[in-house]
Amino acid sequence: MQLFLGIDGGGTGCRAVVADQDGFILGRGFGGPANIASAPDAARDSILAATHAAMSAALGAKPSAQDLSSLRAGLGVAGANAAGAAGRLRLALPFARARIETDAVAAALGALAGSDGIVAAMGTGSVFAVRQGDKIRCFGGWGLVLGDEGSGAWLGRAALSRALRATDGLEGMTPFLAQLLQDHGGAAGIVSFAQSALPTDFAALAPSIVQSDDPAAQAIWAQATADVATVLSHLVALAPLPVTFIGGLGSSYAAALTQFAQVAPKGSALDGALLLAREAG
Amino acid sequence: MQLFLGIDGGGTGCRAVVADQDGFILGRGFGGPANIASAPDAARDSILAATHAAMSAALGAKPSAQDLSSLRAGLGVAGANAAGAAGRLRLALPFARARIETDAVAAALGALAGSDGIVAAMGTGSVFAVRQGDKIRCFGGWGLVLGDEGSGAWLGRAALSRALRATDGLEGMTPFLAQLLQDHGGAAGIVSFAQSALPTDFAALAPSIVQSDDPAAQAIWAQATADVATVLSHLVALAPLPVTFIGGLGSSYAAALTQFAQVAPKGSALDGALLLAREAG
Repeated sequence: MQLFLGIDGGGTGCRAVVADQDGFILGRGFGGPANIASAPDAARDSILAATHAAMSAALGAKPSAQDLSSLRAGLGVAGANAAGAAGRLRLALPFARARIETDAVAAALGALAGSDGIVAAMGTGSVFAVRQGDKIRCFGGWGLVLGDEGSGAWLGRAALSRALRATDGLEGMTPFLAQLLQDHGGAAGIVSFAQSALPTDFAALAPSIVQSDDPAAQAIWAQATADVATVLSHLVALAPLPVTFIGGLGSSYAAALTQFAQVAPKGSALDGALLLAREAG
Repeated sequence: MQLFLGIDGGGTGCRAVVADQDGFILGRGFGGPANIASAPDAARDSILAATHAAMSAALGAKPSAQDLSSLRAGLGVAGANAAGAAGRLRLALPFARARIETDAVAAALGALAGSDGIVAAMGTGSVFAVRQGDKIRCFGGWGLVLGDEGSGAWLGRAALSRALRATDGLEGMTPFLAQLLQDHGGAAGIVSFAQSALPTDFAALAPSIVQSDDPAAQAIWAQATADVATVLSHLVALAPLPVTFIGGLGSSYAAALTQFAQVAPKGSALDGALLLAREAG
């Protein structure tokens, strides 16, 4: 029986699923972080650990080397767009056939479940994908320093920046901004926080911004939705397709950007990885 | 004879000057980095090394403990606005009297040479100061992650961000942006550069942006000058005073923002530190 392996790997962890020819899930497994560009050896170990766990669950016994080598694998892993990273990973894995793409591509394929469409992945970061036929192209996803407009990290950083500008009198002080300043120990505390904050630290502020009726929070959210609308207008002009929003902020953007034709997500990044596994040559 | 010590200390180094009652410079000295918030012990050592060198030049002999303790010192040092930093430094220095302010305050005082006015310090970072009578208040200077609009680092980062957006088709590709992409090994190279780039690394791109007649470079420069004009309009409304531009990009902004009444800088940050020394109580 041909088994299919799907891997969804990112900076915080790695998930594996083993399915049969009909897509029936036989086993699941988990592993550590898997960014194949920044930490390729650790990523390979995480992928193999998650694979062993999923195969053990599927087979009810430890998988043999033959079991692993006969797998058809689809991998959506962070860092797969870095030069040479996917090729090096392929050589380090035991699978007969493997298709390796970024986690963003796998998430988009899973959300679209085989259909053409535009995917807006709005989480800690932001990245967009357009699928037409057998072609998928990503836009954005450049990271918080130079991009990731509309992402959770972008929203949190914008709020802290606006709080500092408000202390200078360059923006109106509001209850939301005053609370942010108090929570961080004033302007100096915000500067200190920002010097070492990771994107996830900034993104932790995003839900409070999106849900707030404070005028400063609403202005930041309006800027974010306008930035995302600009990207989506560009993509719709390239390919007139409906938009599927995914990620932690996906439903908030879906509610805010009703001017775009939308389709709800049909599956997860692991579903997308299994689709990649079926295409693995 | 009462001697006065001026110290100008920042992240890249520390300069000291010793002057007599009439402001005549008797000796100069140099030391290592002096950020009193992030590295207080190293900053104290740098300040003392620069002071010893300047005093040795002034006296023609090694200064005694008595020579040092009788100095009236003015210090403009990075990090002096962090909670507790100036107080800790004061206790660690041997000077009879010392006034400790940020390097931005000393630079503003030196540029204004005793006059009231607005100072726009446009270098790797950006910070603004308003002096009226014996009061000086700083605006901005929050650092690149959350602020520093119009700074050299802000300009360089904006150019790299725009180059990435151009590869996505969200901005027009221009010769300047194409050259940036080529210089960094394409979009992936820019993302990799940005992950570890310091503000000075981004700022190294600023002169090429300011001088360029490329439409993308000019658009970035127009945004930067508009941002700085917004800040200056706010400050002029608070205090109707002429603006003095200092820093590596100061003359470029002075030429671009002719709508503001301007006064040329009259002195350096070391001159400002000597003014602080005279006020040291």
